[in-house]
Amino acid sequence: MTDERLKQQLEFVLEIDKEKNIFRQTHLSGHGRNENDAEHAWHMAIMAYLLREYSNEEIDIARVMLMCLIHDIVEIDAGDTYAYDAENLKTQKAREDTAKERIFSLLPSEQKEEMIALFDEFEAYESAESKFAHAMDNLQPLLLNNSNGGADWREHQVTAEQVYGRQSKTQKGSVRLYEVINQLLRENIEKGNILV
Amino acid sequence: MTDERLKQQLEFVLEIDKEKNIFRQTHLSGHGRNENDAEHAWHMAIMAYLLREYSNEEIDIARVMLMCLIHDIVEIDAGDTYAYDAENLKTQKAREDTAKERIFSLLPSEQKEEMIALFDEFEAYESAESKFAHAMDNLQPLLLNNSNGGADWREHQVTAEQVYGRQSKTQKGSVRLYEVINQLLRENIEKGNILV
Repeated sequence: MTDERLKQQLEFVLEIDKEKNIFRQTHLSGHGRNENDAEHAWHMAIMAYLLREYSNEEIDIARVMLMCLIHDIVEIDAGDTYAYDAENLKTQKAREDTAKERIFSLLPSEQKEEMIALFDEFEAYESAESKFAHAMDNLQPLLLNNSNGGADWREHQVTAEQVYGRQSKTQKGSVRLYEVINQLLRENIEKGNILV
Repeated sequence: MTDERLKQQLEFVLEIDKEKNIFRQTHLSGHGRNENDAEHAWHMAIMAYLLREYSNEEIDIARVMLMCLIHDIVEIDAGDTYAYDAENLKTQKAREDTAKERIFSLLPSEQKEEMIALFDEFEAYESAESKFAHAMDNLQPLLLNNSNGGADWREHQVTAEQVYGRQSKTQKGSVRLYEVINQLLRENIEKGNILV
């Protein structure tokens, strides 16, 4: 009833269900629980669509959305690496490469290649689509954290240098959205939520 | 710094974070916790992309993905209505219409209209895109439930008549994927997971 191709596709579909168990450091708005990778990706994809007018460059929005949706699948094996965890950031690439090979290999080969190319494009941070997807990846947790009075920054004693190190790259995708980010960061530095 | 339009868009973005707190009857694979609407939508959108070759009709896959991503936003106010809950199904439309108006009104008016049109198109079950998105909406929880030995069907004492009433519509979007569904349903009926 199911041919080999469809069987592979459905196996992959079931495998990625595990992404819902990978929890991030970010907390949901309303001081909620930690957010998981799947719902983070969902949020980014909708944001990308609704905020696409602020991209610096013309983008293929379908590609951006798909990039957002799949960019954390490797974390099923590699785990979430917190943006300000210097130790784990060193091994992140190697862990994610191994995960990428195992997980996407469940798919028929041409879909595997396509997904890996899209993931690599995201990671490379060079194409217009990648830059805008990264802007979403940076803006989304910031909006949640800001709505929670900066609790995640305070908990991890994040410094302005750390947060600007990451967030300033948002300009590559959207100068306009970076203005918003910069404003929110200044407010949170002023309130002492982010250390100077 | 933020003009009115962008402010409205960011308010909507923050509002839909609440969808992550709307839990469904479906349990994650590995006999996990209940699934929430946001991660369900994420899963459907990726499935739609990877399984698009099985759509009966030609589809605009970007529209299908967006439809999948936003189709449950109304449940932030209206709550999840279980597919086999006859009582709550009666009031579902009225509850969702009120929710739709409130939540999408946070957006700039032309984006509000666009999102409502897309939601209504999904609900109408008539366009090729809507039919394929519904196929994902039906297939996704079935794959999880089947992977859990049909535990959700057993818990709710779901009958073959009920499940076929819903699942047989999957044919409208994909005859091929319905063959898979039908096979899985037969296996679960045979095992007594679905009542006859």
